[in-house]
Amino acid sequence: MKINYKHSIIITLMLLSFEIASAQEKTQLVRLAKLQIDPAQLENYRAILKEEIEASVRLEPGVLTLYAVAEKDKPTHITILEIYANTDAYKAHLLTPHFIKYKTGTADMVKALELVETDPLIPGMKIK
Amino acid sequence: MKINYKHSIIITLMLLSFEIASAQEKTQLVRLAKLQIDPAQLENYRAILKEEIEASVRLEPGVLTLYAVAEKDKPTHITILEIYANTDAYKAHLLTPHFIKYKTGTADMVKALELVETDPLIPGMKIK
Repeated sequence: MKINYKHSIIITLMLLSFEIASAQEKTQLVRLAKLQIDPAQLENYRAILKEEIEASVRLEPGVLTLYAVAEKDKPTHITILEIYANTDAYKAHLLTPHFIKYKTGTADMVKALELVETDPLIPGMKIK
Repeated sequence: MKINYKHSIIITLMLLSFEIASAQEKTQLVRLAKLQIDPAQLENYRAILKEEIEASVRLEPGVLTLYAVAEKDKPTHITILEIYANTDAYKAHLLTPHFIKYKTGTADMVKALELVETDPLIPGMKIK
């Protein structure tokens, strides 16, 4: 293949966008939130968490995902894979009305909360 | 707005595709794999896991994600959020050359493995 001027611009732009994507991934904040919920309030808690996650993902470009799962054998044990674009996005998230509503509204439902800071093995991994 | 014949076909198709998406999400297999790796072999293990995940996600349409994280404070503690389209996709995954290579190649590196079956709070949640 003969590489002409047009090709070299396209290749440069592709490399540049790859560089930008890599740089963005390096700033990501990735962690696991492990929660235990009061069994008597589980249904209510789930509804409030769902509302909060949907608002965060819809309204905040820097909230890349909040993927929450409940253990089949212990439905009160919930784990959330949280991915934020960077520290600023996370700090801004904490000040949103929907997060504050969630935090205050569920304070007496959450029996235990552990935040585990992590490094992703493959930054930029998606869900198909 | 007057709803004509063309509109009603479009609306029907939209509803249908929504129904199909929901039905597909209901069949998903979502779980957390929690691993502890031999510290002396961690670097080697990470390389083999990375290769296996990249092959799985690239070659298997039914592997929706394998999002692996290592705890910052305990890098030998690895958690993988695994999402498969359905049970058949998972069974097929276990028979792929790349999975078998991973499983046999890391057998003596994995000191503990716990598979926790889960239900997602919001099926269909993505990573932006």
